[in-house]
Amino acid sequence: MKKEEFRLLYDYMTACAEGGAHDTEHVRRVLAYALEIARTEKRVDHDVLIAACLLHDVGREAQAKDPALCHAEVGAKMAYRFLREQGYTGDFAAAVRDAVLTHRFRKDRPPRSMEAKILFDADKLDVVGAMGIARTLEYRAEVGEPLYTLLPGGSVSDGDGDDSPSFFQEYHRKLKRIYDSFYTKRGTEIAESRRAAAERYYEALLTEVRETYAMQEHLEKVVE
Amino acid sequence: MKKEEFRLLYDYMTACAEGGAHDTEHVRRVLAYALEIARTEKRVDHDVLIAACLLHDVGREAQAKDPALCHAEVGAKMAYRFLREQGYTGDFAAAVRDAVLTHRFRKDRPPRSMEAKILFDADKLDVVGAMGIARTLEYRAEVGEPLYTLLPGGSVSDGDGDDSPSFFQEYHRKLKRIYDSFYTKRGTEIAESRRAAAERYYEALLTEVRETYAMQEHLEKVVE
Repeated sequence: MKKEEFRLLYDYMTACAEGGAHDTEHVRRVLAYALEIARTEKRVDHDVLIAACLLHDVGREAQAKDPALCHAEVGAKMAYRFLREQGYTGDFAAAVRDAVLTHRFRKDRPPRSMEAKILFDADKLDVVGAMGIARTLEYRAEVGEPLYTLLPGGSVSDGDGDDSPSFFQEYHRKLKRIYDSFYTKRGTEIAESRRAAAERYYEALLTEVRETYAMQEHLEKVVE
Repeated sequence: MKKEEFRLLYDYMTACAEGGAHDTEHVRRVLAYALEIARTEKRVDHDVLIAACLLHDVGREAQAKDPALCHAEVGAKMAYRFLREQGYTGDFAAAVRDAVLTHRFRKDRPPRSMEAKILFDADKLDVVGAMGIARTLEYRAEVGEPLYTLLPGGSVSDGDGDDSPSFFQEYHRKLKRIYDSFYTKRGTEIAESRRAAAERYYEALLTEVRETYAMQEHLEKVVE
């Protein structure tokens, strides 16, 4: 890919960026992961891969405004339209569109091409390890969800099987399960190398919160 | 303290709560830490301590609206006025006011009474360990600060001595230094027991981000 081409796609991406957890730094990291994975896979179209990485979250703002929309579906259409307007071939625009469409985890819509599988893995790598913890805490703060919830008896829930949203619930629903969802060997390797950091952090926070809540028992002795 | 009295103070606190990092759960945790520390100290006025814990952040909303204001100063005045209006003695209201005024770290305004020292330590305990990491990430997201910044050469700064705000800068400016600032033995003990969790998380995130940025070098080979 030529530098001018890269700049064109990069500028469209930043113009679409909504800030926060899915900001331009996320896109830069996804691109870095994708190129690292691409080194270990055969028959990768680097131009399709780079374009798909840069454009994978352009539908985020539309989803933020209307949560009924899926940013992968909106973004796939936006990417296709933008690429065609810029003179790219229908085949190229369609390959990018399909990768953007399938980057979001959906059982009925798995990534099919090599570039789509690499984008999927690269995007998921930003949800593993310490970075996954940081981005989940960030997102949670933005939407106003609590770190933890209390069980009917007043003790702190570990989040497993919880009905109400919290950081601990999200850890069990998504963060701890993500490691089995990778398509490439290199993606799995990087994810596994970062797994312990996320597990350690979750365990440390849960232990601290439970220890602190146990201290609340003293209140019964001084409030009568 | 009577239950009705506790409820009165608790309700005033929740009415003043602005949500987010300094929400009512923070106040509940601070109260739990304070009562745990109080068990190991002599001559503690539990009523003053409980009232000071419940009211220590009532000035947060004023500071959020006007960052030139100090929430400890505003909160001290609000707590004094509220307690006097509710019929508490001037001595009691003044003791609570002084503790609220000195709970925020300021070299020229250290906590003086035992209750003020305990509140100071209890509030700082919510900034140590995994909880300190979570609350700092949360606050950072709310004000739109990045996780990390890049050095002029393009590498990821570890945050030490940084001029521009980021999570890594805040780790070096505040989080890693907090452990020496406690006044009570029990406060120091709890803080030290949680120190490694914060250090491990910071190190893991820095390692991940630097590893990811190193992968960006591949871009030079595919964009020409």
